Amino acid sequence: MDFTEKTLTQEYQFKGRIIKCRTDTALLPDGTECYREVCEHPGGVGVLPITKEGEVILVRQFRYPYGETLLEIPAGKLDHGPDEDPAGCAVRELKEETGFTAGRMVALGKSYPSPGFLTEILHAYCALDLVPGESQPDEGEFVEVVRLPIREVERQIASGELCDGKTMIAMYRARLLGLLDGFDH
Amino acid sequence: MDFTEKTLTQEYQFKGRIIKCRTDTALLPDGTECYREVCEHPGGVGVLPITKEGEVILVRQFRYPYGETLLEIPAGKLDHGPDEDPAGCAVRELKEETGFTAGRMVALGKSYPSPGFLTEILHAYCALDLVPGESQPDEGEFVEVVRLPIREVERQIASGELCDGKTMIAMYRARLLGLLDGFDH
Repeated sequence: MDFTEKTLTQEYQFKGRIIKCRTDTALLPDGTECYREVCEHPGGVGVLPITKEGEVILVRQFRYPYGETLLEIPAGKLDHGPDEDPAGCAVRELKEETGFTAGRMVALGKSYPSPGFLTEILHAYCALDLVPGESQPDEGEFVEVVRLPIREVERQIASGELCDGKTMIAMYRARLLGLLDGFDH
Repeated sequence: MDFTEKTLTQEYQFKGRIIKCRTDTALLPDGTECYREVCEHPGGVGVLPITKEGEVILVRQFRYPYGETLLEIPAGKLDHGPDEDPAGCAVRELKEETGFTAGRMVALGKSYPSPGFLTEILHAYCALDLVPGESQPDEGEFVEVVRLPIREVERQIASGELCDGKTMIAMYRARLLGLLDGFDH
């Protein structure tokens, strides 16, 4: 079945430094018109770093929209727009936030955080063969690096304590691809 | 460490029917001011329906922001705002989109799709003991119901074919909670 919706009009309502919001009208498959709100976002990367001891390197940071401090994998926006190479961005964010560099980066694919209204694409990677170093946080970025065993991260995901979407997605794909095997003891 | 950011000013830039966008200034832990863009969203639910044969009931629908048809678990916004009971919304969305009613709904916790700028909270449920019935799609909603074995859904997640965030999160938590056990054959 072809459910394609064809854009009829689009109007920008807000152009911020990070996001842009549009209101569009589109033609539905049955020929009727519909209204759509779209939030444009440059996209980002998330990096799941796994040490050879089977620990996950996470960052704890305050997330302003929720007014809460969250535990997440290192991540960042594609600052140079949707044409920036996500793999390069992943290497940079991992170094900046945690100090680690990875001997090996395995792509974990893309994900769509909220496909009803948002254009954001999140590219995830698993960082292996890690070498520690000095972190280089951006100005105004306050992050605390936290190391937790894989099984403790999965316990916090199952219990609902760990709520960050990209962290769960990266862990699940790494689990399904066998990248977390051999650490359970 | 306390990384709390304290709101200094907030200004609405766009108030749509679904989302609202604000630009705020906030005080960082080191006393400097920062700029924040926030997208307010009413939140939503996602429902992972598992049949007794070990199949997942999914919906295929066109997602306008990406211009793509995606495979996802049934889902919907909290139409009556953040005070609507998510469990009731989950029952309604499952019935509307797929026709199924569930004898048992297991909460899979909340998740944060994109915590850097978005206030959306997604509440996930696993629907079990399913009873088929007539779907009741909203006007202008075109969805195709698709049944896939659990192992095929996990294959598509691992390969990167299935990209919807809430679907992966619900599957992972259901897997970790043992709700997908006993179907692999």
